[in-house]
Amino acid sequence: MTTPLVPFGKSRGERADAARNRERLLEAARAVIAEQGTSQVTMDGLAERAGLGKGTVFRRFGSRAGIFRALLDDDERRFQERVLSGPPPLGPGADPVRRLVAYGCERVPFLLEHHAIARAAVDRSHPTPAGAASMTQPHLRMLLGLAGLPPAHLDGLTVQLTAALEGPLMLYLSAEEVPELPEPGAPHPLVDGWRFLVERLVGG
Amino acid sequence: MTTPLVPFGKSRGERADAARNRERLLEAARAVIAEQGTSQVTMDGLAERAGLGKGTVFRRFGSRAGIFRALLDDDERRFQERVLSGPPPLGPGADPVRRLVAYGCERVPFLLEHHAIARAAVDRSHPTPAGAASMTQPHLRMLLGLAGLPPAHLDGLTVQLTAALEGPLMLYLSAEEVPELPEPGAPHPLVDGWRFLVERLVGG
Repeated sequence: MTTPLVPFGKSRGERADAARNRERLLEAARAVIAEQGTSQVTMDGLAERAGLGKGTVFRRFGSRAGIFRALLDDDERRFQERVLSGPPPLGPGADPVRRLVAYGCERVPFLLEHHAIARAAVDRSHPTPAGAASMTQPHLRMLLGLAGLPPAHLDGLTVQLTAALEGPLMLYLSAEEVPELPEPGAPHPLVDGWRFLVERLVGG
Repeated sequence: MTTPLVPFGKSRGERADAARNRERLLEAARAVIAEQGTSQVTMDGLAERAGLGKGTVFRRFGSRAGIFRALLDDDERRFQERVLSGPPPLGPGADPVRRLVAYGCERVPFLLEHHAIARAAVDRSHPTPAGAASMTQPHLRMLLGLAGLPPAHLDGLTVQLTAALEGPLMLYLSAEEVPELPEPGAPHPLVDGWRFLVERLVGG
């Protein structure tokens, strides 16, 4: 999904151009969202702001929702990099229970911060929000196994804990109600609930 | 949602007729689903089978998806009755941990059995599947409180356990993959996972 659509036979220079245009358009989209919110993002507006033709925007993203999916993909990739090779306890090097807790503590604010973008990324041709394809499920499975969860329960509980962590935020996508963003570092019922749940489940 | 739409000023006799027609149409829908599956349910077919006019079907249900929502509502109501006044441990009278376990053991097969109907009940004007408005959340909150979960965690964990129980089945609604129905009484990863989770969380 994140690979730019480069027509077969294009030269390396043209591919580099395509990647650069994609970057410029995403940067323009982020600026509009920060200044005016997701509702003000339009294909025309992005083209103008990035100094590119409207056709280029359509070729890159296909639709308005496609822009938001591309933004989510980019941020998901950065989040994954922190999990796979960033500092512990989110990254490798801490014990699995601490990593499980840290994953939830970082994931809940990530999902809350991306709520408006995730909502705008849903359209009829992509009914499942982008977050559904995140790394959460395989990562939790790996850590729950390392934390000593009985193998017979690994499949069922991985699915259920993924739903416990991501489900409450995904439900908001079709609700009118908008979740409140926690202050950085402030307690949040979903973060606190996750920590309690993990510690009772596999904290020994 | 389950109240038949009776125009203001109708007599008691006409209301009774309306309720009877609704019952006949739902019965016809259940018969078609059992024989041929949800895909064969049509407004025309139901009218013919129930010996009623097509206009009556439209007045009762509004749309094809409305028929499936009415079926789900009916079955949810029956499920709720078992929880509120049926025999323990699903109904009142058992200790809260046993009731929590029993709720999941009954709820997972209920959601699996209703998967095809729930999927058919989703349409653009009602993007949230009917199950989202079930009694699960308030019921879990009540039992988790009785089971001694610290009050500070009650809000967060109620939302997360509701998602753990209902989320995995709701995700299937927009997926291609269809979940496998467990044999009655056979082990199922989501049932076993739920039992393990509840016992670790509040089982003392």
